[in-house]
Amino acid sequence: MFEHPLEAVFHPRAVALVGVSSNPNAGWGGGGFHQAILDMGFNPEAVYPINPKMEEIGGLKCYPTLLETPDPVDHVISMVPAHVVPTLVEHCIAKRVRSVHLFTAGFSETGDERMAALEQEMVAKLTDAGIRVIGPNCMGLYVPGSGLAFSRGFPKEPGNVFLLSQSGANAGQIISTLARRGVRFSKAVSFGNGADLKAHDFFNYAADDPQTEVVIAYMEGIQDGRALVDAVKRCARKKPTIILKGGLSAAGARAANSHTASLAGSRQIFEALCRQAGAMRAETMNDLVDLTVAVTTSVKQVKGRGVALVGGPGGFAVLSSDAIAAEGLDVPPMSEAAKRGLREFIPVAGTSVNNPIDAHLRTRQQFEDGMRLIAGAEGIDVVLSTSYGPAAFGVGENNNGEPGAGEAGNRGEQNVSSALDLLVSLQGETKVPFLIVQRDSPFEGARGSAYQEAAYQRGIGVFSDVPRAARSVRLMLDWRARREGLPDIF
Amino acid sequence: MFEHPLEAVFHPRAVALVGVSSNPNAGWGGGGFHQAILDMGFNPEAVYPINPKMEEIGGLKCYPTLLETPDPVDHVISMVPAHVVPTLVEHCIAKRVRSVHLFTAGFSETGDERMAALEQEMVAKLTDAGIRVIGPNCMGLYVPGSGLAFSRGFPKEPGNVFLLSQSGANAGQIISTLARRGVRFSKAVSFGNGADLKAHDFFNYAADDPQTEVVIAYMEGIQDGRALVDAVKRCARKKPTIILKGGLSAAGARAANSHTASLAGSRQIFEALCRQAGAMRAETMNDLVDLTVAVTTSVKQVKGRGVALVGGPGGFAVLSSDAIAAEGLDVPPMSEAAKRGLREFIPVAGTSVNNPIDAHLRTRQQFEDGMRLIAGAEGIDVVLSTSYGPAAFGVGENNNGEPGAGEAGNRGEQNVSSALDLLVSLQGETKVPFLIVQRDSPFEGARGSAYQEAAYQRGIGVFSDVPRAARSVRLMLDWRARREGLPDIF
Repeated sequence: MFEHPLEAVFHPRAVALVGVSSNPNAGWGGGGFHQAILDMGFNPEAVYPINPKMEEIGGLKCYPTLLETPDPVDHVISMVPAHVVPTLVEHCIAKRVRSVHLFTAGFSETGDERMAALEQEMVAKLTDAGIRVIGPNCMGLYVPGSGLAFSRGFPKEPGNVFLLSQSGANAGQIISTLARRGVRFSKAVSFGNGADLKAHDFFNYAADDPQTEVVIAYMEGIQDGRALVDAVKRCARKKPTIILKGGLSAAGARAANSHTASLAGSRQIFEALCRQAGAMRAETMNDLVDLTVAVTTSVKQVKGRGVALVGGPGGFAVLSSDAIAAEGLDVPPMSEAAKRGLREFIPVAGTSVNNPIDAHLRTRQQFEDGMRLIAGAEGIDVVLSTSYGPAAFGVGENNNGEPGAGEAGNRGEQNVSSALDLLVSLQGETKVPFLIVQRDSPFEGARGSAYQEAAYQRGIGVFSDVPRAARSVRLMLDWRARREGLPDIF
Repeated sequence: MFEHPLEAVFHPRAVALVGVSSNPNAGWGGGGFHQAILDMGFNPEAVYPINPKMEEIGGLKCYPTLLETPDPVDHVISMVPAHVVPTLVEHCIAKRVRSVHLFTAGFSETGDERMAALEQEMVAKLTDAGIRVIGPNCMGLYVPGSGLAFSRGFPKEPGNVFLLSQSGANAGQIISTLARRGVRFSKAVSFGNGADLKAHDFFNYAADDPQTEVVIAYMEGIQDGRALVDAVKRCARKKPTIILKGGLSAAGARAANSHTASLAGSRQIFEALCRQAGAMRAETMNDLVDLTVAVTTSVKQVKGRGVALVGGPGGFAVLSSDAIAAEGLDVPPMSEAAKRGLREFIPVAGTSVNNPIDAHLRTRQQFEDGMRLIAGAEGIDVVLSTSYGPAAFGVGENNNGEPGAGEAGNRGEQNVSSALDLLVSLQGETKVPFLIVQRDSPFEGARGSAYQEAAYQRGIGVFSDVPRAARSVRLMLDWRARREGLPDIF
């Protein structure tokens, strides 16, 4: 059994939702939280909505105050207005709960000194009583294994990625976006103002958590700098750790201050922290998402800058080559041996075997032989295929590689599975990772997501466009170079 | 009547499609072209498929050769294999056609010297007979006003944008992507190897064409450098001219060479050309698309770097501010006067009026008053709204600004129209352009497209994310600065 002071925070057995509203338009206060928790599979008999004006909500009995709940409660979600929090704090202490998530906003982030003082006082009272606090001004916990979530529609299956985020909206966006890509989470926490539990607490926990293999973070402020540096170092030494920092511009810093009362700190300090700790720095939300896919798929195995770009059509291949070069990667000419091999089964007109490779590998055998030659060619470290989305497999022997009308259906799905399995076996054989850019079919939407998940489950990363795929490869290489001297993670 | 030597090329009255295939899997050769032309409204009695082995195709009578067609033909689309082109050339001369579009590939772009020589010889024969050639190795013409198209699904309504593209695939992507954004085209031409008609011919034509107000180009090679420089200068002086150049990297240049037989030329030469001519240089496909939207909407009116960023939620506003700053734009604090005005109707908790402005402007009156204060505030040159997609209008008084369930429907659409009209009137009043980032609803899909078109028709640009919107503003400002001394276009 994993022992950690925060373990109980992530695994409550009974939850009270204080300040539930009868107004369904009240968003989270109007049932969002308890619906999300029930959907996630939390024991409904251990969910206690609290509202003195209501008898029940969504089939659950309502209690007038926390004190009236019949059984022990470990975790409290506070949706009451800020001025009601002092009373709730007394109740939490009397009830001997273990953790409080203050969804309640209106404290230090308003810039009002009295509210900042109240935040400090309330949190001190709780922590003095041994109660840990998440927030205020945040969405709290998503722990699929414990049946906790702050939004409906998050995946129920647990995974290996730990997310800590000061912003609830960004946490929600990261979870939804990565879930569509196939990623699953061990735990996620949105911690807002971080009045008690802060980034360093979560980095330290995630570093030790046996369910967590990768740690990703969205931060606005740097609180308790020394402890943070130590925690990030400790975490990044053991597990791939990816950090996106908001508020690095003057306007962003001002926004961060009014969002989570954060003092943003400079770009230099933050860059130095990531560099020294061996963490990966995401510059944008897209970076954070793509790097998470990269470190949890074969992309992490990439050893060098030689990219084989497979797929047409011509003008797209030209711009793709430029985009790959813009990231400092190479698209080297194919070796003579590989070209000879490819020429044996690729017709001349309208195709090129010179990298970028605009070849129509039409049958399974051509595909297998072609990809083996390409991945095995001298100077090739990674194969980036842009003609390899789901549409490529629902087709017949169409000259233009376009999806055949109708009848794709099951056959298409079988083809996808079997082609992805083939890629996995070619990867094993050649030790060269394959990346897929989903060019020929929608990246968004249910079908696109099903395809991404199918590939991801086999350890193959799917990206929305060539620039993002190339950037992910480049950032992986930079990070590996930067980790020289640190223990090997992969 | 506009007189220009190329006018006839864009307005043929009868088209022969030579080499139509009976195999529907043969893509364009299998009916793609004639279906596209018929869909676009070309007179079916003036469309002549040519194939000696077929009696009819898609309800149209087939002729054995071009010579057997009963009436005059101005324009020929060649889908025959390269080795059949010499015969076709004789027929075209005998039939006295005016233009030939060689869809046929397999000439100079193969790198085979004999095929390059054949290309030159065939094109010389045609031009000596006064016949202009588009291609070879290209998709040819999309002229909605003439009923010409090279793909089904292109808009039937003509517009004001002229596209020239060496790549057919890129032309198709540019047209489809921009069409979803609301843009319409005067003419588009994919000209491949450019053996006869080249980029400079099309720039010169577009500069004079009264239907064309904006000229956009995707180029791979630089052919006839002096003529090109003159044509781009002439064009850019009169009309906004946006150029994307593929093949600027070594790998991209190699790809361009095997794609359209292009010698790509250096980045320096190309940058100098754009700078001296006063053209806008697009670095990526996204740039080309976004800049086209920018120069055809109110974005083109932007005068300075002060951005008001309107819309939450908090963490998103933080990252958005950073992204705007990364483009060298400012998100300056709101003036005291504007803040006082906003505070009068915006509640404190969970909102900020300090720019970024995370305010819930719930009613139409609040929206109007708020946007007027924001756009009119000192130091604000452009308003970038991220909470203003279609979902914002289908909602009730939801605390979280989330779309109300159901019942959006017609009311939503009416709200969209009326809110967009309001923006237009606020723009007129404040002289500050509004940009919309479609964050709260899908940018892709039918609903997203309908929204973008509705906004575009009113001259309001919609962008898919904040970085791209900010970059478009910055590129517009750079371009305006660079045009100092040239005649005012807007």
